[in-house]
Amino acid sequence: MTEFIPPGTRFFALPSPFPMKRGGQLIDPRLAYETWGQLNSRGDNAILILTGMSPSAHAASNAGNPEPGWWEAMIGPGKAINTDRWFVICCNALGSCKGSTGAASTNPATGHAYRLDFPDISLEDIAGAAHALVHGLGIERLGCLIGCSMGAMAALAYLQRFPDSTERHINISGGAQALPFSIAIRSLQREAIRLDPSWNQGQYEGDIYPESGMRIARKLGVVTYRSALEWDGRFGRVRLDGERRADDPFGLEFEVESYLEGHARRFIRQYDPNCYLYLSRSMDWFDLGEYANGDVMAALAAMRVPRTRVIGVTTDILFPIQQQEQLAEGLRAGGQQAECLDLPSPQGHDAFLVDFDRFIPAVAEFLATP
Amino acid sequence: MTEFIPPGTRFFALPSPFPMKRGGQLIDPRLAYETWGQLNSRGDNAILILTGMSPSAHAASNAGNPEPGWWEAMIGPGKAINTDRWFVICCNALGSCKGSTGAASTNPATGHAYRLDFPDISLEDIAGAAHALVHGLGIERLGCLIGCSMGAMAALAYLQRFPDSTERHINISGGAQALPFSIAIRSLQREAIRLDPSWNQGQYEGDIYPESGMRIARKLGVVTYRSALEWDGRFGRVRLDGERRADDPFGLEFEVESYLEGHARRFIRQYDPNCYLYLSRSMDWFDLGEYANGDVMAALAAMRVPRTRVIGVTTDILFPIQQQEQLAEGLRAGGQQAECLDLPSPQGHDAFLVDFDRFIPAVAEFLATP
Repeated sequence: MTEFIPPGTRFFALPSPFPMKRGGQLIDPRLAYETWGQLNSRGDNAILILTGMSPSAHAASNAGNPEPGWWEAMIGPGKAINTDRWFVICCNALGSCKGSTGAASTNPATGHAYRLDFPDISLEDIAGAAHALVHGLGIERLGCLIGCSMGAMAALAYLQRFPDSTERHINISGGAQALPFSIAIRSLQREAIRLDPSWNQGQYEGDIYPESGMRIARKLGVVTYRSALEWDGRFGRVRLDGERRADDPFGLEFEVESYLEGHARRFIRQYDPNCYLYLSRSMDWFDLGEYANGDVMAALAAMRVPRTRVIGVTTDILFPIQQQEQLAEGLRAGGQQAECLDLPSPQGHDAFLVDFDRFIPAVAEFLATP
Repeated sequence: MTEFIPPGTRFFALPSPFPMKRGGQLIDPRLAYETWGQLNSRGDNAILILTGMSPSAHAASNAGNPEPGWWEAMIGPGKAINTDRWFVICCNALGSCKGSTGAASTNPATGHAYRLDFPDISLEDIAGAAHALVHGLGIERLGCLIGCSMGAMAALAYLQRFPDSTERHINISGGAQALPFSIAIRSLQREAIRLDPSWNQGQYEGDIYPESGMRIARKLGVVTYRSALEWDGRFGRVRLDGERRADDPFGLEFEVESYLEGHARRFIRQYDPNCYLYLSRSMDWFDLGEYANGDVMAALAAMRVPRTRVIGVTTDILFPIQQQEQLAEGLRAGGQQAECLDLPSPQGHDAFLVDFDRFIPAVAEFLATP
């Protein structure tokens, strides 16, 4: 039961009690965040970034933490998200374990970690907490709201709940609702964690950690974050150097297996399993259709955001390109300006983290207009 | 450690010792099989069916076992595989646990089950055993060789090793080599089994069975055997009847989760985990390119089989349609008659087991010509 908080993280005290959409409330919760650049005197140059499930608020290096962030190539002076022009905020999602209040945080009512006593968390709660931070930083209206993956769905919750709260919006590799294939994948990831005896109904502690479950969950994630096409070109049938152990026909033998193993090793014990379960389930529950009698398109058409660029990747199997096209179509149906860019990156859902040749121009061009 | 042998199964004693491609040999191995129809006097009307990884030899009901088989809709008098005309043989793959010799069988050298002392098994071994059965039944040359999924790859091994051993060939949802996405999926399935403490290095016994590992492996299989498209239409975001337990936000809630659970329940304790590991790995190793200095197309062009129909499904993520198109293209490059049918079934890799509206005509038409 550990939080993993990068150095230099700043904290914002959320309103307390903080009511949760599905019931319950949080006492004295906080949101971890970082910033880059300066808010201008009109207060209209702020960009808020809502992250995917696992990243911290450390999207790029800054004075508080010179280590490269998870979107280092994208954020900085003169970069696509140009910090000479924009005041950039990135927050760690409510419910995460990287500084924001989540299942791994101490419950002030008991003095112990919440674990499974944490209330159900929804993407609407994540959006509400992020909006409270923006407001708390003295910003009335964002210049741009950017959401990636889970953050892209949270951004839609933000726009639904706070109409006309941003001038622009970039929605990357998300969708208006969770569909059964991605629900199935996440359900399986959660089951792997919950079947691990070391998970122990969320009561792991110290050295005890559901390593096997998190290993399977992460590898399954990586499989669905990338694409078969990329792997054909990248790994093919290349074997690892050195002979496999003669007595173990099931050990690592192909490069693709070693690649997954590397991803698992870098994730295990770097993320809290209970927080993983909570945020994973929050995505399954998300359905913008809730706000329009089950009609996703009507919910999109009711949104108020002047300019939106949706970006999708044609090889994404977790959030297929049709979901991004639907977003742009729905917004346009409501009279908003919206376009969808279908990027042919081979890297699938993860492309926004690695295919900067395509993503930098896609983001830069949209933000460069006055 | 159990074998699961349907009633009415027949057994064929394979040549002994039976040498294995990757080293080692089997003493007194056997192959489980069933038949339908009658071999004609010319001996030229035999069809051999090579199955996917999990099915038994019981492809259809017959005198020995009136229960419906896994391809009941396809095989019988007047059906697509018309047993009034054809003598049909289906064998359980060598290495499986449904009657053929595999890791769950008794090792005559020790009197105990092989478990992990079973030698590495390759699809070439499976093909060799099947060919020995055909020969043993007095058949010089098949009328048609049919392979599905794993059996489709084994059929290519058969054709490579025994040129001109069949007049026709139907290759369903297979490929000439394992590609990294499917290797990754299978690697993860095996890892889930091996991480289950009840697997115990293959030494489970009696009530002890790696149920959690097999559960994850099966569910992950089902996810990749079907398609997101099918599930969008079939499950959408439909909830299960009845409220989820208020104290468990991670229990089954969506219909798609219940569907996976049903598949897992029907598989667990119905298949031997060690056999699963061996056959799973055999697919990773398969690469027809081995027989032509790494050049898959050259290996295909060297094959001798007069008439081939390859059938693929456009929504298959495990064996993408490009792999089936490659088979037909390679065979044609070698001067053979071959065509690829791209079926738009929504059911993905499993379509041959369920989309009979498309598969019955595709098989029937090809077999109906003189």
